[in-house]
Amino acid sequence: MDSRPIGVFDSGIGGLTVLKVLAQRFPRESFLYLGDTARLPYGSKSPQTIRRYSEQNVHYLLRQGVKAIVIACNSASSQFTESEFEGVGVYNVIHPGSARALSLSKNKKIGVLGTRATIKSGAYAHELIRLEDQVEVFSQACPLFVPLAEEGWVEDPITNLVVFRYVQPLMKTGIDTLILGCTHYPILKSAITKVTGGQIELVDSGEAIADLIAQDIVRQHFKPARPGDSQRVEILTTDASDHFASLAKQILEPVQAHDFRVVDIH
Amino acid sequence: MDSRPIGVFDSGIGGLTVLKVLAQRFPRESFLYLGDTARLPYGSKSPQTIRRYSEQNVHYLLRQGVKAIVIACNSASSQFTESEFEGVGVYNVIHPGSARALSLSKNKKIGVLGTRATIKSGAYAHELIRLEDQVEVFSQACPLFVPLAEEGWVEDPITNLVVFRYVQPLMKTGIDTLILGCTHYPILKSAITKVTGGQIELVDSGEAIADLIAQDIVRQHFKPARPGDSQRVEILTTDASDHFASLAKQILEPVQAHDFRVVDIH
Repeated sequence: MDSRPIGVFDSGIGGLTVLKVLAQRFPRESFLYLGDTARLPYGSKSPQTIRRYSEQNVHYLLRQGVKAIVIACNSASSQFTESEFEGVGVYNVIHPGSARALSLSKNKKIGVLGTRATIKSGAYAHELIRLEDQVEVFSQACPLFVPLAEEGWVEDPITNLVVFRYVQPLMKTGIDTLILGCTHYPILKSAITKVTGGQIELVDSGEAIADLIAQDIVRQHFKPARPGDSQRVEILTTDASDHFASLAKQILEPVQAHDFRVVDIH
Repeated sequence: MDSRPIGVFDSGIGGLTVLKVLAQRFPRESFLYLGDTARLPYGSKSPQTIRRYSEQNVHYLLRQGVKAIVIACNSASSQFTESEFEGVGVYNVIHPGSARALSLSKNKKIGVLGTRATIKSGAYAHELIRLEDQVEVFSQACPLFVPLAEEGWVEDPITNLVVFRYVQPLMKTGIDTLILGCTHYPILKSAITKVTGGQIELVDSGEAIADLIAQDIVRQHFKPARPGDSQRVEILTTDASDHFASLAKQILEPVQAHDFRVVDIH
């Protein structure tokens, strides 16, 4: 067993949707969350830049003594695919999300929503086809979703229209499962469900990673916290912003962060 | 007279709306445009981070031998207010935009649209009040405008709704002049005009800076190109992206760039 925290990083606050699910599923584990808000968003950057920033974030978390790393950012996950780095286990969102989508899909027609970079990288399509060569993948980049989520326009006719614009063409392909390929997107789950209706399974990265960590605990690939450990959640960002701090609290609710701090990762 | 190029920088491609106006107004001047696309957007970053990145961009342009610098980015302009830096003249967008708005306004009720950081900095409000203490300023942050412009949804009902959401409350204040306080916003000028109607003067940063440079040529504060010089326009970005390269060409049209290059400014 191992009381050290799990490190979670994202380019911003979207990864908090993953942190929230993990903190609720593993109530004795502690978490150190790093939001690289000074350099967000990663979605519009080149593969090389995303890789470089991701390595800097991973090195920073390793220096803080984490026992595992969760890359709660789809753009970063598409450029950082190792399952281990310097002796520490790494979970990205691409493999767990793809595996969960395949386990839920009956007709093996799977949709993927993501940022421009994630869709362009083809990361989900490659992973889905690697796991199941009969799958059909239909992808859609949704550059407006992150700013809508960050604006807090969650129950909003404008958001419904934007979701319709991006998602409706996917509906015509006959998909039965839809991967929310950006950690911000669970914030818009209610608007997305208005377009997908009840028949399409939505795949949330947080739940997919939690399933995988639970399996790794059983397989003894992951050392859980000790029985007497109590959870501590720390949120680090590379840039200060009141708007993001208040949005972070809303997203995490009912999980409580013990500390919010600005850090320089260089 | 001085044949060296004018350096123009922005966090991304929005500043190309300024470059376009300047290249058309001064057809013998050459331009070196730097888009810090690896670190965009600046609008969501802290004042300290924006200042640090801006200084790095200015130093880079100075090393390339520019004769003047235009900060075609409102977030950067709000943190970099010097009119001279290391012996070279610096034009930001805050002062020219404010001066032009005051010259156009009859009732001295002026609206400002901008990113969250520009509005929060109060840069336009401070400058407007410094220039004319009787002015009333009404500000509105519009975080969706940049992604809408970058998505190319220019003539689009969704854009019209978002513009209405942000701009309609300003209309009720009785403003007669509206500063487009982000260099991306001229791309949405047609949608903004649908809400403001014909009675409100829109202030575009590019035109405001061009006016100021023209005045500085007359006052001999700015050395223009030689009569035989022919224009050369180079576009540098800190990150490669096909989407941005094609959008850049659209925005600049009919101005033609002679070179597109990715550079490392460190």
